[in-house]
Amino acid sequence: MTERLDAQMSFLTEACRLKSITRGTTLCDGSRYENSGEHSWHIALYALTLAEHAPDDVDIHRVISMLLLHDLVEIDAGDAPVFGDHDPTEIAAKEQAAADRIFGLLPLDQATRFRALWDEFEANATPDAQFAKSLDRFQPPNQNLASGGGSWVTYRATYERFESRVGSKIARGAPTLWAWLKPRAVDWFKTNR
Amino acid sequence: MTERLDAQMSFLTEACRLKSITRGTTLCDGSRYENSGEHSWHIALYALTLAEHAPDDVDIHRVISMLLLHDLVEIDAGDAPVFGDHDPTEIAAKEQAAADRIFGLLPLDQATRFRALWDEFEANATPDAQFAKSLDRFQPPNQNLASGGGSWVTYRATYERFESRVGSKIARGAPTLWAWLKPRAVDWFKTNR
Repeated sequence: MTERLDAQMSFLTEACRLKSITRGTTLCDGSRYENSGEHSWHIALYALTLAEHAPDDVDIHRVISMLLLHDLVEIDAGDAPVFGDHDPTEIAAKEQAAADRIFGLLPLDQATRFRALWDEFEANATPDAQFAKSLDRFQPPNQNLASGGGSWVTYRATYERFESRVGSKIARGAPTLWAWLKPRAVDWFKTNR
Repeated sequence: MTERLDAQMSFLTEACRLKSITRGTTLCDGSRYENSGEHSWHIALYALTLAEHAPDDVDIHRVISMLLLHDLVEIDAGDAPVFGDHDPTEIAAKEQAAADRIFGLLPLDQATRFRALWDEFEANATPDAQFAKSLDRFQPPNQNLASGGGSWVTYRATYERFESRVGSKIARGAPTLWAWLKPRAVDWFKTNR
């Protein structure tokens, strides 16, 4: 029992480093860039609050578990802002190695379970993963709308790029949320671009 | 439906402010003080990871929901560091008013449900609340051990004060976790005080 707990505590102390990974999005008040730890809390709260807008076959507790884990790989791989130019193959390789190392700190049975949840999130093929991924894409534009543009300004995003990189993923897992966000985003880009 | 979602989005945007509430504890690497948003993520991850150490009658998903919500009142009431000197009656009044305002942003049925979860956490009388409260008390000493003292140094804490204000609450809801932490804390205070 003590060995298991030792391993779990090593994992939880390592996880603390996610609070030092900076994202491309600012806080809603624009005062500073958001980190991936507080982002993970916020989208788990999005899931709890917006559960009724998920498709019927979604298990919201599995979604929340996925969201608590989804960014841990960034401790090694960093955050790849959605409007940035990255080599997706290179990022995927870095994130796989990060998942091996970080989930590997846990007792084997638990490492396997957490890794399976993260793999499911990444594969974006089940209703739970698709809703989780939609929330991960839905929160940043709301912060941009609140802060007056945020990463849309930094990365000189166009509406077309936003819809193809972000909107399409929100629409896939959470059509109700996309229907709410789309006119607000259209309006922002019309006024500011 | 749109009115409900408008209200939920107001709540989620207001919640963003929790990322600007500074706590008395530093990150594990001691680089800066922690904020209450990233702290909330970290203890929700504690709950997910340490679920097997909860008493048998604990519903870990309810615990995680409580932990995602537990600090929102600090947006108005601020964080009251555990070793600081505060008037508990004054803090409780501020937190009640904050809960009225912040949960009150939600649709009424949801405001009532979230408020009931927060009230249950605060009352610390059910097994779920006691385990949640234990995790809220268990994470900071682990960050202190990792960073070389943290809030124990800032507040010139003694072991006796730590055991009465923190240890007793961990022991109440999560005796296994207290059994793991206690010798480590005893050792730190012996070496550093």
